[in-house]
Order: sequence, then C-alpha cells, then structure tokens
Amino acid sequence: MNWWDTDATHDPARQSWVESANGHGQFPIQNLPFGVFSPPGEEPRIGVAIGDAILDLAACARLGLLPPESAEACGKQVLNALMGLDTASRVALRRIISHMLSEEGFRRALDAAVHDAAACTLHLPARVGDYTDFYVGIHHANNIGRQFRPDNPLLPNYKHVPIGYHGRASSIRPSGVPVVRPRGQRKPPEADTPLFGPTTRLDYELELGVWIGAGNALGTPIPIAEAGSHVAGFCLLNDWSARDVQAWEYQPLGPFLAKNFHSTISPWVVTPEALAPFRIGQPPRPEGDPHPLPHLWDEADQAHGALALTLEVWLTTARMREDGLSPQRLSTGPATNMYWTVGQMVAHHASNGCNLNPGDLLGTGTISAPTPDGYGSLMELSSGGKAPLALPGGETRTFLEDGDEVIFTATASAPGRVSIGFGACRASVVPAP
Amino acid sequence: MNWWDTDATHDPARQSWVESANGHGQFPIQNLPFGVFSPPGEEPRIGVAIGDAILDLAACARLGLLPPESAEACGKQVLNALMGLDTASRVALRRIISHMLSEEGFRRALDAAVHDAAACTLHLPARVGDYTDFYVGIHHANNIGRQFRPDNPLLPNYKHVPIGYHGRASSIRPSGVPVVRPRGQRKPPEADTPLFGPTTRLDYELELGVWIGAGNALGTPIPIAEAGSHVAGFCLLNDWSARDVQAWEYQPLGPFLAKNFHSTISPWVVTPEALAPFRIGQPPRPEGDPHPLPHLWDEADQAHGALALTLEVWLTTARMREDGLSPQRLSTGPATNMYWTVGQMVAHHASNGCNLNPGDLLGTGTISAPTPDGYGSLMELSSGGKAPLALPGGETRTFLEDGDEVIFTATASAPGRVSIGFGACRASVVPAP
Repeated sequence: MNWWDTDATHDPARQSWVESANGHGQFPIQNLPFGVFSPPGEEPRIGVAIGDAILDLAACARLGLLPPESAEACGKQVLNALMGLDTASRVALRRIISHMLSEEGFRRALDAAVHDAAACTLHLPARVGDYTDFYVGIHHANNIGRQFRPDNPLLPNYKHVPIGYHGRASSIRPSGVPVVRPRGQRKPPEADTPLFGPTTRLDYELELGVWIGAGNALGTPIPIAEAGSHVAGFCLLNDWSARDVQAWEYQPLGPFLAKNFHSTISPWVVTPEALAPFRIGQPPRPEGDPHPLPHLWDEADQAHGALALTLEVWLTTARMREDGLSPQRLSTGPATNMYWTVGQMVAHHASNGCNLNPGDLLGTGTISAPTPDGYGSLMELSSGGKAPLALPGGETRTFLEDGDEVIFTATASAPGRVSIGFGACRASVVPAP
Repeated sequence: MNWWDTDATHDPARQSWVESANGHGQFPIQNLPFGVFSPPGEEPRIGVAIGDAILDLAACARLGLLPPESAEACGKQVLNALMGLDTASRVALRRIISHMLSEEGFRRALDAAVHDAAACTLHLPARVGDYTDFYVGIHHANNIGRQFRPDNPLLPNYKHVPIGYHGRASSIRPSGVPVVRPRGQRKPPEADTPLFGPTTRLDYELELGVWIGAGNALGTPIPIAEAGSHVAGFCLLNDWSARDVQAWEYQPLGPFLAKNFHSTISPWVVTPEALAPFRIGQPPRPEGDPHPLPHLWDEADQAHGALALTLEVWLTTARMREDGLSPQRLSTGPATNMYWTVGQMVAHHASNGCNLNPGDLLGTGTISAPTPDGYGSLMELSSGGKAPLALPGGETRTFLEDGDEVIFTATASAPGRVSIGFGACRASVVPAP
C-alpha cells in the first residue's frame, strides 16, 4: 500500500456506532488518529479518537481484538513502538479499528473501552527523542527574512536545501498546557547594552508537525522514494517565539532560547493512512527556480507529497473572554505553501546518515500564505510590531499579551470525501514568574 | 558540600587493593568515574573505573553495600537516575565506593564484581534527552569567525550571551564507534550550483561535554548560584564537522547536517566531586569587556568555576599505523580558554525557563588556545585548508582522510594532588558507503 492509496476505511458511507462520530468535523470514523490519554484518576494508555469519545486500544488488546504484531505496541504508555511498526502493520491495525467501530456487533464488547473524551486528559503522544524544525514555508521565510535582513531576505541556499535546525525536545507540551512568558536577553535598537527581562515580543508560529515512524540506522540515508514510509503521522505545532531574544541571540548558530522555552502540539497523531484521500501534487516550482538535486527528487513524492489541508489561527484575549466575545480568526491558508515536501525534509535529514527514530518530531516551519490573510505569525501580521491588529471589543495586538490564548486548527477536505480534522492546538500565555 | 570542597576521597595517600589503580594516570582511586559497561556476553550495567578494572555497581547494590538512596539507581542500565540524585547522595555514594576500594577487607567480597576493563564493552553512559552545543571557546570563535565572516569574526552578542544551539542526541556514540564519512550538499566557491557527495572537509572539534544532573521544571530558571549543583559530570566530546556542508547550509538557522551525523564522547563520567581539587578561578575578562548581566554572574562561580585540565588531540593515519609510527600530537592546551563558565552556560540555558533533565549533555564548543599549538580543529590548524600539516612518515593533512583516527585526552592536575584523567575519546573515519 502506498501512502496515497485509499481503501474501505475511507468510504464516505461508513458510519460508527459511536454516534457522535457521524458528521463529526474532526474525528469521524474515516480519521482514527492515535493518542495517549488518561481517564479520570487512571494511568495513561493508547487510544483512538472517535467523535467525542476515545477508544482504549490497550483494552482492545487485552480483549484479543488486535493483530498480534501491533497488540504489544498498543499496550504501551507512549506511541513510539506503534509508530515504529512497518506501514503494513499500521494499515492492518487501522482496518481492524475501523471495522470494530463500524460494526454494531462490537458495541457491547467495547462499551467499557469507550471513554468520554471531555473527561480525559491527553498527554504527549510519544517520547520525543529529537525534535527538528524546518523552514519550508517560503512566504514566511521571505517575510521574516526581510525583517531580519532587509537587503537579503531569502539566502542563496534556500531553494537548494530544505533548511532546518535542531530544536528542544524537553519543552514540547500537549495542547492546553499554559505557556510561561519567558525572560531573556535582548538589546533594543536604541540601547547601548543588552538587558534581561520578560520578552516584549512573544509570538506564535503556525506549523505542521511530522511524526517519524520507522527509523534508519546511523550512517544509512533514507532514499527519497522511501521517505513517505518513515512518516507515522501529523499534528499541529505552535513554535512559540520570543522575537526580541531571537534577534539578539540568533547569529551565528541559530535560534536557541528564543524558541526552546515551550512548543505546543495537538495531541492526536493523524496518520498518513487517514490523510491518503487528501494527497495532492506538490505545486510546481516557479519558473527559473533550480531543480532539486537527485537525492531530493522523486516523481511520486511530487505527485502525492502535499496535503489538501486548511490551516487556521484564532486568538482570544482575557478581556474578550470576560466580555463573552468569540475568538477572532487571525489567518487561514492552505498547507501547500511549503517549498519542500515532507518527503524531501525526511530524505534531506537522513542524507548524511543522521539516524531518525520512531517518535522523533519534525516541524515544517511557519506556513504563511503569500497574502496577509494567511500569515502564520504576529511578526508578519503586525509587520514586525509596526502595524497593530484590531480585535473585537476595541483591543489591539502587535505581539501576545498575558492571558491571550492562541488556537490552531487544521481540516483536510477533498471532493466526495468526509473531511477530517486534527483537533485543536491551543495554549494560553501566563505571566513571567 | 560545595562542588569545590575536597575530602578524604581526594587524599593523595589513599591507595586501592586494585593494584593497577595505584599510579594509574587516568583512573586512580581519587577519580572513580561512572559508566555503563558489559562484561563479555553479558548485559549492560553501571560501573566505576578503577585502574585497568571496572567495579560492577549493580553487583555492589545486590550485596547491600550501597546507600539505600542510590542503590536502586545503580541497578539501572543507564546513569540518568544516578545523575539525577542530589549532590549529597552522590557524595555519599562516592565516599562508600572509595572506602570499599581502599579497604583490603572488601577485596574478597568484591572479587567477582571487578572486571578487566580491556575485556568489557563501554556504552553510552546515559540516555541523552537533549544535547546542546555551546560556543564558549573564544579563540575558536575568533578563528572560525574570521574564516566564515572575515570582516566580522566575533559578533556583537558574543561577550553578552553564552552562544549555544541544539544538537542531535540520536547520533551521539561512545569512543571507538567508527565515523562514517557523511555525504552532503555543498557549493564550492567556483561552482554555479551546489553538488551532493562525500564531504571533502571532514574535521574534528575538541570539546568538553557536561552531563546535567538534577533537572528543573519547565518555566523555572536555575539561578547561577545553584548551577553547579545541576552538573553530574564531565566527558570529552568530538563534535565531528563537515566544513563544506556547514559553510553552505548554516545560514540563517545554524549548523544542521554538517554536525549531526555523529558525535563521539568519552564513556566515563568524571564527577564534579572527583574534579574538586582541580577547581580554579575563571580567568578575568580582558579589560574593556562588558560585565555579564546579573543573572549570569556569581562570585563563587568565578572563583571556582574553571578546571585545571590539560586537553590534547592526537592523530594516527592508516599509513602511520601500517608503518608502526606512533600517533602524532596535533595540539595541547588548557580548558581555561573558555569565555564563559559551565555555571554560566547552565544558568543561561535555563534562564528562559527551558527545562533541563538528568542525562542531558552540553558541549562547550571547540576549546582552542590563542596560539596554533593549541588549536582545537583542523579548520584552524590548516587555516581553512590552505596550510597542510606535516605528519610523521611524510604525509600531510588539511582535513581528515578515511582511515584517520582522532584521539582526545584530558588530564586534571594540581600541586600536591594525584592527577586524574578522562579516558580516551577516539574514533576512526570510514569511507562513505
């Protein structure tokens, strides 16, 4: 099975006996994302989101309902082992889960294994061994590059190399965990010397997260034609950024404390199998752009390597919530604003023999559209703090204030298909201690 | 106990009934570094190096000889739990081990727990959650900066910020594991477009590694006065680098594939307790340099935060070994060529609330002396490849060739004290596949 093949699990007519799944914008039976959850007062375990509920896969394994090659992995408290299974095993597991959740005959046996999602706690889905953040959103790279280097926004390597760097694994948190405003060293343009204090330019960055599945041995690259089979799933990723700290610290070795204080991910792992119907071709490179080197080029990856995914950013402030105002949508845009495919990111990462492991996380970098209605950060939306955004109730924002909550969503849709979502990636800013 | 206090375990008169320890340049009874080893055909376990032998700490725990608060941690297959103990527990454990290995009465009980080191395999001592590489070797920063940015070698932030960036944890390997020459994308100055192939400018970087002990909670900085108590030990670190890949990829987000294909560490964790007699004052900042901001300044750290450690780099080539020639020493210098202390690195890293965990690894960055006899990389020694080094037997080197083996050593010495060493950090280069 190729990552773009569809099967009966994608059948738009398929319904679940978990009634809330039918017509559920995020988690219909066609989605079936994996995660790690705790029912109230209980231990973490692996589950699958289905409508407003979660199916306990560890319980399914104990009932003997899962294929032998994935049953053990489903009994763990993190998804790493499940992510590391080969594609065929993951597909087989998906088919069985879809079958169990659609066939009325399983309702009784599984009744105790289905939990109300609203009452459960969601955890990080995997132990992240290494986290790498890319920079493939070309409009973001242009916009941000223009602010940091007005004369030189897009560097000469950008269209040859999927630029990336290593980020911090320890500070990744699931949706809902508050973000403490970081202190940091910054040097205001008018100051002679730097100062240390809470960041005054706290920003979000809208990114897709990519979960690595099967790994590769150190010293053994992943050919691009096989890169897709090393991806276990996708999530939303907020790469919180302190822009004043970043501007002062980032040369010559890249961002460090400006980014590593917290990263928020949506806790459900949406699988490549679930996203198969939403595979689309990578947009052609603009006329005159260089052709990638052979190790970064694969026709099948170009034909199926992008996703028909709509991304949205929403904001509420403390005052908006007090005043009963709804969140304000700050931007929306397609995930196709990536200059490189996920396959190219994976192949590049391993091209020097660097070993990837199940549960490693890649970020795409901020995905911005070419126009302001799709900019993926406040740095871009406010033109580096020069153009405040108007919010409902009369407030304005250049950067985030304490009490602000940022919410990302993603929806995959295609003609004749049941849309699926990623669930929310949200977090509020709390004051520096 | 402060990290610079000494006690009976440092007594120069103390001898061990493991005879090879007495007069051993690396592992006398005054050292007692921790590591993870396997006797032939057996499982990994925690041990302590003593002369040419290793004491099995798991066996000691089973015999009931270790303090209750550290016995469980000594039974693991990685040092993370042991590293995470508070300083008092680590000191208590050190005192008991020193006592057992010096008192003749323990010889018989521990006979089966003492293994010939030469017959054992040494493993990575800890599961490295996150690996951060700093850039505190100011002479290296000057030398390398001059090559990458002739007009701008030391950037304005250098003397205000301990510059660092996140590296790759998955590709860290213990001494002895061969390094596969990486392929990578590079753009020779004379070429119009980049090409992909084995690096032609493979280099080593001489660094100290710092093992993090007790961690901090996300959002909670580590005050610099407490930074020393968060350090569990030291090792040698070779940050292998592909200079041609680095030059092409590193802007704007820092080194990535040029560095993450392999990092070699010496497998023994030399503790702050063992290094207490070798604590010296941080060299004063040159006249006119800025005073660090308050969160990076502590008088005790300045008074005791540096180490009287001599670092050496040695090279052998395949032909030198065939011809029976001894390794050639390429450089030697003191570890005091660091512009920032380890305490400043730790305090800076956590100053934004970034959480450090037991078993995290920090690299200092390349430690070069101000003069060529102490340069810590070939990039510096060969002036960026322009001035080949002469080797015994008539060979020359600008960068590393296949078959070359690089060996780092470190020796701590002080008047009236028994010198201790780190053991070797060595690895050979094997061809790209």
